[in-house]
Amino acid sequence: MRDTSDEIKHKRIAILSPVAWRTPPRAYGAWETVASNITEGLVSRGWKNITLFATKESVTKAKLVAFIEKGYEEDKSQIPLVSTSLHISKVMERADEFDLIHNNFDYLPLTYLPFIKTPMLTTIHGFSEPDILRVYHDHKDTYYVSISDSDRDSGLPYLATVYNGIDLSNLTFRQTPGNKLVWLGRIHLDKGTHLAIEVAKKYNMDLIIAGIIQDQDYFDNLVKPHLNNSSIQYIGPVNPTARDALFKEAYAVIHLNTIPERFGLVMAESMAAGVPVIAMDLGSCREVIADGQTGYLVNNADEAVEAVGKIDKIDRKNCRRHVEENFTIDCMVRGYEKVYEEIFRLEAKKNKK
Amino acid sequence: MRDTSDEIKHKRIAILSPVAWRTPPRAYGAWETVASNITEGLVSRGWKNITLFATKESVTKAKLVAFIEKGYEEDKSQIPLVSTSLHISKVMERADEFDLIHNNFDYLPLTYLPFIKTPMLTTIHGFSEPDILRVYHDHKDTYYVSISDSDRDSGLPYLATVYNGIDLSNLTFRQTPGNKLVWLGRIHLDKGTHLAIEVAKKYNMDLIIAGIIQDQDYFDNLVKPHLNNSSIQYIGPVNPTARDALFKEAYAVIHLNTIPERFGLVMAESMAAGVPVIAMDLGSCREVIADGQTGYLVNNADEAVEAVGKIDKIDRKNCRRHVEENFTIDCMVRGYEKVYEEIFRLEAKKNKK
Repeated sequence: MRDTSDEIKHKRIAILSPVAWRTPPRAYGAWETVASNITEGLVSRGWKNITLFATKESVTKAKLVAFIEKGYEEDKSQIPLVSTSLHISKVMERADEFDLIHNNFDYLPLTYLPFIKTPMLTTIHGFSEPDILRVYHDHKDTYYVSISDSDRDSGLPYLATVYNGIDLSNLTFRQTPGNKLVWLGRIHLDKGTHLAIEVAKKYNMDLIIAGIIQDQDYFDNLVKPHLNNSSIQYIGPVNPTARDALFKEAYAVIHLNTIPERFGLVMAESMAAGVPVIAMDLGSCREVIADGQTGYLVNNADEAVEAVGKIDKIDRKNCRRHVEENFTIDCMVRGYEKVYEEIFRLEAKKNKK
Repeated sequence: MRDTSDEIKHKRIAILSPVAWRTPPRAYGAWETVASNITEGLVSRGWKNITLFATKESVTKAKLVAFIEKGYEEDKSQIPLVSTSLHISKVMERADEFDLIHNNFDYLPLTYLPFIKTPMLTTIHGFSEPDILRVYHDHKDTYYVSISDSDRDSGLPYLATVYNGIDLSNLTFRQTPGNKLVWLGRIHLDKGTHLAIEVAKKYNMDLIIAGIIQDQDYFDNLVKPHLNNSSIQYIGPVNPTARDALFKEAYAVIHLNTIPERFGLVMAESMAAGVPVIAMDLGSCREVIADGQTGYLVNNADEAVEAVGKIDKIDRKNCRRHVEENFTIDCMVRGYEKVYEEIFRLEAKKNKK
């Protein structure tokens, strides 16, 4: 891939991060993580004028501009929409100071598009509900990136897919497998925590569950009853250090999502640590996992049990290499550089007319 | 009050109504009711260029501009913020077509103020939670109206108080009292439905409860156990016709709000029908009720019981007259005409500089 020219690296880019959590988040906060990785990645690749819009306590090597003290998920005295709308409108008020706004905060920023001249790129990190498409469909004359080929709405114009990139420095590659199954993520039916439990029981291998409880009812009914202090454990949310220690114990990661995966950071993180992933063949999983090379795609828990029996056929070095070549922050940032370059080309063409 | 000049009645006014319900609402929908009354009132007073922004099925003699099919409270397939943000941003996109935008839809429109040149008047129909003040305090260089002197935030600049006005045509004045107590409103702890029940039981008079159930838990625990088919009845929400029939049966309306009332439409409606109101002396109640003339202000249920005993001292004609002189749609619209005039004066001065 040819390197981005030096000239473009002087462009003034505003990265709009959510304000649900700090950027980068202390533990959970998927979109803030990506926004942080893009920001820091651009800075480390020599971009000179990067501004991160995030909460005040956010940490960045770029210029931080902030109006909201703390993430509304971390300080529940806030009404999320109050913080969200103030945060977004403040970015938009300063739109003229930038050559490009890179929106990582869902659909609300789009409603300010008619009032700004600066082009905006929106990474659609997920369609939380079909109804939010009304806003996207109302704004087709702007720029979109999908986070996997599978997570696209057919009615929208996309410039590219840019896979999320992960920070390898927090993920130690380990050649030697652990002796436990691991489930990691936000605990919710969508993520199929209960199916990992089923696989562990059927294969008779210990399971460690880690992550925030997103759906308390689901946890109480389908997860908690199976927990004990030995064969099936829940260890709560994990920070990067604890996650790294967790992967050391992992024989395989079980990722039996019940709805199409949009991207699946956990799969990339696991492979980076050398841990093969057994994933449901839904959504982006087949874009992230090389079936038979870095893990297995399955269609149900029984196939997953079978797949655990074949894990020793996977070369853990392949897992790591697959991530290094496709899912690092550097890969992602190079992807966005190409997209930014394309936007500037399109805008220049538009302005010539 | 001198009449507004003909010239001003050609000004182009956009009335921004909420899209929770149709404008006017079929039953419940307080802000939509006010927005409708302002709109229709201006039209009937000869304003030539009034545009109502509301749901598509709204009914108006002004020009209707709509982007949202149905109220999000009437069609639950919508995400409220999707409809809200689309609705508001569409108004703002067309701001240049108007001389004034009159916002009746809370704080989100304020975040678009930096992008429009048209002055905006915001009627603050209520501070749902203290945190929304962050948005108001961020926008002090705009115009505000309060709906009672008591419902003001000391940090905001207000042009005036304009009391809500009610449509008298749906409220028959009746000299002869009914023989029941009536409670009307949205069923919620804030509105003290349970205190009306306490008063009815202590005074041993029948009670009819009408209105939507806003807090189901509250209803189930503090209202429902007391219901029977005779002395304490719940008849559900009432449309204007049913409400008029309800007031016919009313000896008095019991309005023992537990938090400061912002304005209290129900009190004005009751008095318009000739029904005296016994109200908690909190918030705007003392601005709406003439104590001892059109009802009684009390501090608790026991005082309310006492007050029921003195209801025959109230001349029901006074109740009606008090509303005619202060709380009709015409009073309200004249109030807004004065405010609009003041805004145009201030804007002209600003533009001279």
